[in-house]
Amino acid sequence: MFEGPIQEVIDALGELPGIGPRSAQRIAFYLLAADDDVTTRLANALSNLKENARFCSTCFMISAGEQCRICSDATRDHSKICVVETSSDVPAIERTREFRGVYHVLGGALSPMQGIGPDNLRIRELLQRLGDESVTEVIIATSPNVDGDATATYLVRLLSPLGITVSRLASGLPVGGDLEYADEITLGRAFAGRRVLVEG
Amino acid sequence: MFEGPIQEVIDALGELPGIGPRSAQRIAFYLLAADDDVTTRLANALSNLKENARFCSTCFMISAGEQCRICSDATRDHSKICVVETSSDVPAIERTREFRGVYHVLGGALSPMQGIGPDNLRIRELLQRLGDESVTEVIIATSPNVDGDATATYLVRLLSPLGITVSRLASGLPVGGDLEYADEITLGRAFAGRRVLVEG
Repeated sequence: MFEGPIQEVIDALGELPGIGPRSAQRIAFYLLAADDDVTTRLANALSNLKENARFCSTCFMISAGEQCRICSDATRDHSKICVVETSSDVPAIERTREFRGVYHVLGGALSPMQGIGPDNLRIRELLQRLGDESVTEVIIATSPNVDGDATATYLVRLLSPLGITVSRLASGLPVGGDLEYADEITLGRAFAGRRVLVEG
Repeated sequence: MFEGPIQEVIDALGELPGIGPRSAQRIAFYLLAADDDVTTRLANALSNLKENARFCSTCFMISAGEQCRICSDATRDHSKICVVETSSDVPAIERTREFRGVYHVLGGALSPMQGIGPDNLRIRELLQRLGDESVTEVIIATSPNVDGDATATYLVRLLSPLGITVSRLASGLPVGGDLEYADEITLGRAFAGRRVLVEG
């Protein structure tokens, strides 16, 4: 609809996930009216992203330096490694405040459909970490979907001979959800994973 | 939560309207995984925005050149001017395909609360256009809210001595809406603006 520089911004924003044409237009006009440094800061941050983004040499999470903040934090429990698919899974787990160990980012999940095999993930690097360090538990936190389940099964088989505790996040009814509206697969998993409260 | 370049992108995106912290994170990781030219195109478009964005010298809509596409289109009816608050109101009206005239962008609405008076809007420029051109109708399309109403009232008083038809967009029940859930002001306006279907 528009022309020139504003339309270029609208088009470029419209390609981002979760931003429709109306949001893109709204943001573009916001930027046009905003202070110069709002736009400059965003433009610079974007230009720097690909150049300067690095991955932690230990856990492969996105990082500012050679090692990420979590791996270089001595107060964390380095004997527990939580295996996740992507860097963006880490803050979700950090927000729970349930885990004080360290992470290992696989870089995706096994997916024969998309041609992603074990060699495309950082599984060899995980095995190296398990060899070097005094790791006692590996917690598999891949997503509870087909690819995540396949990855978890593969890892369990791979890690079971190593004498390390291997666990996986519980799958079941989400807290605050309504049993009546739970899908049958989630409900089935909740049954299979039920916890005994009183031993009979 | 993250550090370095990715967090800078997340922070900068998070300041945009309609983008929360989760969307910002999602977009940042999307950009990290996407082709270099997606990020480059967005960064360049943003850098160009402020430098190269211009406003049409006739209607003050955002434009690529001296005159916008609509003002320089000879097939449009230059005798009808639709007065809007901002450039982003124009595509909304264009989508209706009801209007084939030209526009005039005020650059906002009168707002004593925010200290926006007639001199802050492009009202003098509108009067100049009405003097120069053979304009027969001015359609006031300011928003149906306090400031938009005040602006419309002001314009009606200003333009009434000029012998030009001045109209305002109808206010009433939105199409597809439910009368039961209409707010009383909208419903009141729908009553006041009712159309006689059979003359009694």
